[in-house]
Amino acid sequence: MSRISLAHGNGGRFMRELIAEVFQQCLANPYLDIATDAAHLGALPGELMMTVDGFTVKPLEFPGGNIGSLAIHGTINDLAVSGALPKFLSLSVIIEEGLETAVLQRIIATAGEAAAHAGVQITCGDTKVVPRGEGSGLYLTTTGIGVRAPDIDLHLKHIQPGDHILVSGPVGDHGTAVLLAREQFGLSGELQSDAGSVLPLCQSLLDLPGLRFMRDPTRGGLATVMHEICRGTGMGVILQQQHLPVRDTVTAVCEMLGYDPLYLACEGRVVAVMAPDDATEALQRWRRMPEGADASIVGEVSVSDPGRVILETELGGQRLLEELEDSPLPRIC
Amino acid sequence: MSRISLAHGNGGRFMRELIAEVFQQCLANPYLDIATDAAHLGALPGELMMTVDGFTVKPLEFPGGNIGSLAIHGTINDLAVSGALPKFLSLSVIIEEGLETAVLQRIIATAGEAAAHAGVQITCGDTKVVPRGEGSGLYLTTTGIGVRAPDIDLHLKHIQPGDHILVSGPVGDHGTAVLLAREQFGLSGELQSDAGSVLPLCQSLLDLPGLRFMRDPTRGGLATVMHEICRGTGMGVILQQQHLPVRDTVTAVCEMLGYDPLYLACEGRVVAVMAPDDATEALQRWRRMPEGADASIVGEVSVSDPGRVILETELGGQRLLEELEDSPLPRIC
Repeated sequence: MSRISLAHGNGGRFMRELIAEVFQQCLANPYLDIATDAAHLGALPGELMMTVDGFTVKPLEFPGGNIGSLAIHGTINDLAVSGALPKFLSLSVIIEEGLETAVLQRIIATAGEAAAHAGVQITCGDTKVVPRGEGSGLYLTTTGIGVRAPDIDLHLKHIQPGDHILVSGPVGDHGTAVLLAREQFGLSGELQSDAGSVLPLCQSLLDLPGLRFMRDPTRGGLATVMHEICRGTGMGVILQQQHLPVRDTVTAVCEMLGYDPLYLACEGRVVAVMAPDDATEALQRWRRMPEGADASIVGEVSVSDPGRVILETELGGQRLLEELEDSPLPRIC
Repeated sequence: MSRISLAHGNGGRFMRELIAEVFQQCLANPYLDIATDAAHLGALPGELMMTVDGFTVKPLEFPGGNIGSLAIHGTINDLAVSGALPKFLSLSVIIEEGLETAVLQRIIATAGEAAAHAGVQITCGDTKVVPRGEGSGLYLTTTGIGVRAPDIDLHLKHIQPGDHILVSGPVGDHGTAVLLAREQFGLSGELQSDAGSVLPLCQSLLDLPGLRFMRDPTRGGLATVMHEICRGTGMGVILQQQHLPVRDTVTAVCEMLGYDPLYLACEGRVVAVMAPDDATEALQRWRRMPEGADASIVGEVSVSDPGRVILETELGGQRLLEELEDSPLPRIC
């Protein structure tokens, strides 16, 4: 059948065939058994970590990825920034009646490739179909289980005054790419989403004693992570505009459309807060990796303006980056 | 704010406040830390089991439950029928812009109560808001992690000819209750959904060596589980209509509306396949429990008609229960 119908979600033959032909085919691994209610993971020694993310991005496919790869990378990244090695994922799909089966097939295939590439197994899934007009094509939810070494403890509370803030690459690519793909401004250009796994970047810093905290700047962008640091520490953040990596295309599009790239989502970047002694070493490690080639130390944690995120401009001025409120941001994840 | 707006999903202040005021309040437990990317579960010895379920039921609230309790019980039940003790859940919510905050609050409070009652911790969550017209009020997805004793191995492949089939209580209550709540036929009556946890029922049989397989008959109902047994074993199933527990109200409503209760979902029943030697003991155990008071041995596995599910009627006739195909069933989970 070329389009998904309500019968693909009713528990009967059509659903069984869809699951066998699309999900089992694209996601095949030893843990995925579509005849059982729960997947058997076996014993998993170590400290377990768990995270969940829902994905409602529109359009479903965009330059640099689709909702399938995004759903895998997003949850892998949440485990990665917490210092864990992702092991197992669940995948729930809510399909709107009428979605082209070929689109679903492409998206789930991409999800399977992303998981395989990161060495993560998709162990279980669920499929629901909602009537036309009660969805937006496809919503995905992934939950991830990972294992963390017992001596790793990253948390906002470990952050100290003077700690340096690193970003692994240019910010705002994902938000801008999705915005352009959705609105079809005719500004196609070469801009791609940065959607990808930050697992290698995160793992590369875990042995540095000065590593305090990591987070991927998704919804709300870099500025929102900075506000989380302020709230979690009672301190402030000072960013240096000249060190902030932002692509020219992103700056140009944002200026044209009235967005600030510091509030736009990344889906393949990571922010690390490091003690000054280890910050340079961390930066060098990231820059040696292809996904960290444009990494930068963008600012530091400060006690001078508690609760405030201040951007020092290249001309020496200061701009307050407010917490995101009721802004009409594009839906990007 | 009395209704959910898109800003409640943008990563900024409104989202943070919604998460603190609704989710953190209703789901509070030591694992849930809204300031981290992943929850720290600690070490979890034993064989781990994982399952996921999405929930799109409409209406969101119905006699006997709501989408919140359903999402908790549904995932607990999938772990329970696999022989596991549920430990941890993740909860992802996709809210349609305009949902009343009070409705969300009620639903999440019910979810919290259901989890607490089953001794399960909701460790992590995610909130997305989609524009009006791209959802149906609220969709939930829960992923569960449980622990199973190493010697328990329930699977369709263990089923033998002559095994007995038990059902823990009347079938079709949930499907019928939701149908009535949705269509507002003016047939309110006393019919309640059976939505609830089957964990005590499942745990009560785990020490019986004759226990082969359990499943909760949700989407597609009892008939669909029987077809899964046929496909998984290459054998057939014979059901005795006189032993099938169906409430008179459910029969009456189904006759009026043209549904078959054997295809309607339960959300608080369990099917067990038992070796004949242990079937009576299993039945007695269930009947001593309040949630199993109406349990019944409803049929057996047979080699006489491979692949077929046959209903022997009270008058001595036989009716073939076909696999569910493109049937216009109500969306019930």
